[in-house]
Amino acid sequence: MKGIAVKIGQKGAFLTEVMPPDKPVNEQVLLKTLYTGICGTDRGIINGLLNFARPEADKDLLVLGHEGLAQVMDTGEKVKSLKPGDLVVPIVRRPGKCIQCKIGRQDNCEDGDFVEAGIRGKDGFMREYFIDEEEYLVKVKDKNLGKLAVLTEPLKNLVKAYEVYQTVSNRSVKTCSDGSYWCKKVTIIGAGPIGILFSMLFITHGFQVTLISRSDKEGVASNICKRIGADFIQEDAIKIDVKSLISDIFVDTTGRPEIVGKGLQALKYNGVEILFGTTLAGNINITGEMLTEAVEKNITVFGTVDGAKQHYVEALNYLSMWKEIYGNLLEEIITDEDVPEKSVEALNGDGKGEIKRIIRWS
Amino acid sequence: MKGIAVKIGQKGAFLTEVMPPDKPVNEQVLLKTLYTGICGTDRGIINGLLNFARPEADKDLLVLGHEGLAQVMDTGEKVKSLKPGDLVVPIVRRPGKCIQCKIGRQDNCEDGDFVEAGIRGKDGFMREYFIDEEEYLVKVKDKNLGKLAVLTEPLKNLVKAYEVYQTVSNRSVKTCSDGSYWCKKVTIIGAGPIGILFSMLFITHGFQVTLISRSDKEGVASNICKRIGADFIQEDAIKIDVKSLISDIFVDTTGRPEIVGKGLQALKYNGVEILFGTTLAGNINITGEMLTEAVEKNITVFGTVDGAKQHYVEALNYLSMWKEIYGNLLEEIITDEDVPEKSVEALNGDGKGEIKRIIRWS
Amino acid sequence: MKGIAVKIGQKGAFLTEVMPPDKPVNEQVLLKTLYTGICGTDRGIINGLLNFARPEADKDLLVLGHEGLAQVMDTGEKVKSLKPGDLVVPIVRRPGKCIQCKIGRQDNCEDGDFVEAGIRGKDGFMREYFIDEEEYLVKVKDKNLGKLAVLTEPLKNLVKAYEVYQTVSNRSVKTCSDGSYWCKKVTIIGAGPIGILFSMLFITHGFQVTLISRSDKEGVASNICKRIGADFIQEDAIKIDVKSLISDIFVDTTGRPEIVGKGLQALKYNGVEILFGTTLAGNINITGEMLTEAVEKNITVFGTVDGAKQHYVEALNYLSMWKEIYGNLLEEIITDEDVPEKSVEALNGDGKGEIKRIIRWS
Amino acid sequence: MKGIAVKIGQKGAFLTEVMPPDKPVNEQVLLKTLYTGICGTDRGIINGLLNFARPEADKDLLVLGHEGLAQVMDTGEKVKSLKPGDLVVPIVRRPGKCIQCKIGRQDNCEDGDFVEAGIRGKDGFMREYFIDEEEYLVKVKDKNLGKLAVLTEPLKNLVKAYEVYQTVSNRSVKTCSDGSYWCKKVTIIGAGPIGILFSMLFITHGFQVTLISRSDKEGVASNICKRIGADFIQEDAIKIDVKSLISDIFVDTTGRPEIVGKGLQALKYNGVEILFGTTLAGNINITGEMLTEAVEKNITVFGTVDGAKQHYVEALNYLSMWKEIYGNLLEEIITDEDVPEKSVEALNGDGKGEIKRIIRWS
Repeated sequence: MKGIAVKIGQKGAFLTEVMPPDKPVNEQVLLKTLYTGICGTDRGIINGLLNFARPEADKDLLVLGHEGLAQVMDTGEKVKSLKPGDLVVPIVRRPGKCIQCKIGRQDNCEDGDFVEAGIRGKDGFMREYFIDEEEYLVKVKDKNLGKLAVLTEPLKNLVKAYEVYQTVSNRSVKTCSDGSYWCKKVTIIGAGPIGILFSMLFITHGFQVTLISRSDKEGVASNICKRIGADFIQEDAIKIDVKSLISDIFVDTTGRPEIVGKGLQALKYNGVEILFGTTLAGNINITGEMLTEAVEKNITVFGTVDGAKQHYVEALNYLSMWKEIYGNLLEEIITDEDVPEKSVEALNGDGKGEIKRIIRWS
Repeated sequence: MKGIAVKIGQKGAFLTEVMPPDKPVNEQVLLKTLYTGICGTDRGIINGLLNFARPEADKDLLVLGHEGLAQVMDTGEKVKSLKPGDLVVPIVRRPGKCIQCKIGRQDNCEDGDFVEAGIRGKDGFMREYFIDEEEYLVKVKDKNLGKLAVLTEPLKNLVKAYEVYQTVSNRSVKTCSDGSYWCKKVTIIGAGPIGILFSMLFITHGFQVTLISRSDKEGVASNICKRIGADFIQEDAIKIDVKSLISDIFVDTTGRPEIVGKGLQALKYNGVEILFGTTLAGNINITGEMLTEAVEKNITVFGTVDGAKQHYVEALNYLSMWKEIYGNLLEEIITDEDVPEKSVEALNGDGKGEIKRIIRWS
Repeated sequence: MKGIAVKIGQKGAFLTEVMPPDKPVNEQVLLKTLYTGICGTDRGIINGLLNFARPEADKDLLVLGHEGLAQVMDTGEKVKSLKPGDLVVPIVRRPGKCIQCKIGRQDNCEDGDFVEAGIRGKDGFMREYFIDEEEYLVKVKDKNLGKLAVLTEPLKNLVKAYEVYQTVSNRSVKTCSDGSYWCKKVTIIGAGPIGILFSMLFITHGFQVTLISRSDKEGVASNICKRIGADFIQEDAIKIDVKSLISDIFVDTTGRPEIVGKGLQALKYNGVEILFGTTLAGNINITGEMLTEAVEKNITVFGTVDGAKQHYVEALNYLSMWKEIYGNLLEEIITDEDVPEKSVEALNGDGKGEIKRIIRWS
Repeated sequence: MKGIAVKIGQKGAFLTEVMPPDKPVNEQVLLKTLYTGICGTDRGIINGLLNFARPEADKDLLVLGHEGLAQVMDTGEKVKSLKPGDLVVPIVRRPGKCIQCKIGRQDNCEDGDFVEAGIRGKDGFMREYFIDEEEYLVKVKDKNLGKLAVLTEPLKNLVKAYEVYQTVSNRSVKTCSDGSYWCKKVTIIGAGPIGILFSMLFITHGFQVTLISRSDKEGVASNICKRIGADFIQEDAIKIDVKSLISDIFVDTTGRPEIVGKGLQALKYNGVEILFGTTLAGNINITGEMLTEAVEKNITVFGTVDGAKQHYVEALNYLSMWKEIYGNLLEEIITDEDVPEKSVEALNGDGKGEIKRIIRWS
């Protein structure tokens, strides 16, 4: 059967024959892949930029794919919550033995001793079929979501980010004087899928949102912002005067230090900056004045990665909610879709012009 | 123009002519009522059972109605977030001056010095038009909800209850070992709108839910449970052996002390009982053994009333989510709908056979 | 060497010869017992009232004692934080395998699969010497505490209770309008060691405290209250009009249902009742009106048992703080002290006239 | 009567005659100043470096002093909690009208509309007598503290910082697997009073602490570390290899960006950096790699300023606790003490060689 893999240490992904799975036993579930999404991490692995990428122990190739949507084909005899025909989103990160992993919070793993499907130490979902454990599969209740459910995996990271925002904000009164968030300004930088989904997430909870991006691929971001009631500014955030960026919450999805530094200066009292991007490039000069402001204004800055199983559950809830409120709007994010054979070339490309590209497996 | 009112101290609601509102000024908004819902509180006022019910200062009559859905007709010159044609849900409770009210949390008011539309000190929404302040109106973004949006007000109480559950549960690890809620059992007693909505709320977050009720009006509760994946048991919870009720969370929507006492005994370690019903009748014998269990098992019991503006916002989000996932299922809760003229009689009745009755105003 | 033990199924504790410990290896620590405290649990075991009491697997006798203070005599080769001469308080409850136990919170154990020294499945500290693991020993930094450190174990339960109070109180604004607790009234019932220590704990954080008790053994409670600035009322709380008990926090240390019911009625809006007593006797009639009040007032009631290792650490901090502020006041709680030979009789007695009795082992 | 004041816009503090207070009325309290402390903020004002410093409306001079200890001389007729002879610590920051101020959390003021005694818009405590409101006075229960109580004001900032640390750390499991903090490493940079007090604070709760400083004035920091069980390293943190600084918590008290950048790199998974210093000088280059690490490791960084009234209460508790555990150790922090006449010169100096200098007023 077909799969898309890389050989670590060698650039480029390729279509290849991979071993078909056996019959599922015990808590195992046999799955047919429907869709997989492509994100920057995939291209990072393909281009050898992520030094943590590695195949399964004593394997040569790593099957790619950590954003998946699959259908249950068969189940082991101990599986209780799933049956053939069910749709599921598989979990990326699998727990190690640290105290966070022990309670199902491998997203907070504190010793790095975990594996991630399609990324490190575990084959991913870019193959026609795969076997997984019931515990690591999140059921999609809303079958109408269709391919939108492949956005669950990236969205779950944002659901966690929002939860962490809520937690750290408990250090002071976090709502406006009417008990809602209407007065809180959120600035989000970057109009990729993450920036767009962050905008929808904060708008959903009643915040005022401004999305800023240098580019607006196919006008998707500006169109979605218009539709959901957010402001969209097409400009390099670095060039915008900091006074125009004043915010309660500043979300960076670019990983560019210049943006993060600007965000720090744009925060109001009790403001929160969310670090979400991982560009690995650039740099910014942080001055004593900026740190003094962070102290005097009770600022919080946090990085956040991955999400727990519950965040996948809630991500699916958001997708359903947004489908109802905005109809097919979300599908505009999925700018490119193709069969595996035709997706490999795009995987090896730079992704320019895409927002979210997905692969259709069956 | 028409309105439905009561005269405090005298049983019975009646259709009457009420003063039409003036043109809105400043932050005021002129609203046309679309729907109002009827709940036990309305019947309590009508039957003189709620001694806190009172008209506005120097008024004789109290216009009923605290569950509303309305359309903006006109706005004062300072109104920014609303325009004619928008749909809104008006907030019931208006703040006093205590520390909770000052931060928009009049649902937690600590001196009782608040007013509630249609209940105490403020005319309600059972009239063709009314004026309200922008601050107390929650915009309905999802116009497809239609009359379902009239469920926002009762649902917001549950959204608060769930938030309080999350807060008190921070006393121990609250998820299962996979980081989700799949292993947590919730037992909910009472198949009125509240019990049904609580079931949907907990199912949404991945809990295992059992709804128990003596009666199942028109089979609505059992049908909804089947559809959403909850268990439904048609029996008096008091007659069920406590061992069959063992739960992590026990939600009472009946206010019957016998149920509350049984729930206390049914809780697992770190279990939580949510008190939501206000029957004012019955009694239960609590023994030293039961209290000892509550201590040894780290049990939490909490009552919760009303909700903040943010809970209205989130209630609307849930309604959209559920409409997408379950289609028109939620409309089954609305068993009765009529124009004001024909609703007065039902208001004065005992509500038997109804789940949720609503009045269509235009 | 000497020890005090019981034979489960047979009333009465007795002095007996117990096996002296071997030389400590690995993380083991050899300890000489200095003091052990006696509490109601010990007398419950002795009188066969606690059906969970049991000896270690394949042992016949259970050595009593869960409130201990000991001195390090020798350490295994892997012990890092302790050396001979150090004073330690040993932890009572040892973890099982549940999710709470895995993160060191066996005080919240959710399957009951733990052991407790001197109570269930593990010999206690009423013996001249014992071996324990470094992990379960809490170092006493303040050597001046002397025998007061034997109060660490009971006090750690209250430290946890206060932490849980803080957690559940996050459901609303928990301070007064000046950001402190000065306006919050705490009523504590029962003038045993627990009631007295609860009074000191709340006074320390600036609450207004009233301690109520039928009796005042040797005038200790009234004297301590006077000294720390709390009110003391010598009367049966059940006989006091509920209006005189109105509180933000009501702490029951008696386990008498009549008290707990009265407390529920005495709570203000957002009030919290703490269940701490485990009498196993009595009963109270809870009515619908009382439950309705709990709902309308956003009341929280919680039981709490045991405490985590961190709570032992903080209990020792409180003892030091109180010794500095109040001098030898706390020693008044220790009304009775004797050598093991002379303590057995008292252990088998009813404890009348005692507040806290301790045994001096060397 | 004597006072020490500055004229804004002019360098240097001077001893001057200030208006003696009137008789206290209503909630007013007449106070005799016992001690005031001097900190970097005072010298910043004196040298014209803090542009927010300002006198009271329509006054020419600003009386300095925000760290105070005073004795009650007389009280207005509505004062309830204080009587002549009582010792108090006055609160520095007084609330404005924002949502945080309304609940007594002016330390989190979100519009900057507050006044601070001795700093901005309100005369301070460097004068022989002053009048204040009961609400802004924190009673010192432990009279044995003597002049140590003048450390309450700076310490309360740290108490808040520790509380914020606890809050933000709720994003993951925050204790070690035994339920305590013994495995958590804290690195604190700067051996001024703040660095030393932070060390004591974290040691008190069982953390492993390393204090690092370029200098060790009079050997006080190294001596205190030795005594309390912390490590002391006398070196410029910037010169230490980041691998030797690996920490769960990194506290910067210097405000030097170079240190803050190093701390960011030294954090473990789920690590927290506390920004406490406000040097206004220096700068650091933050790279994309560093931000990526912050994301991948779920890092939190927060600034924190001032503290609420409750933090003053708890600061006094810590001082008592430490006096009991460490005897007069804390007095070593107070390296310089003099009468007002002789303190002015030191105030105008650079503070070299001092750790904490205090002024004795009577």
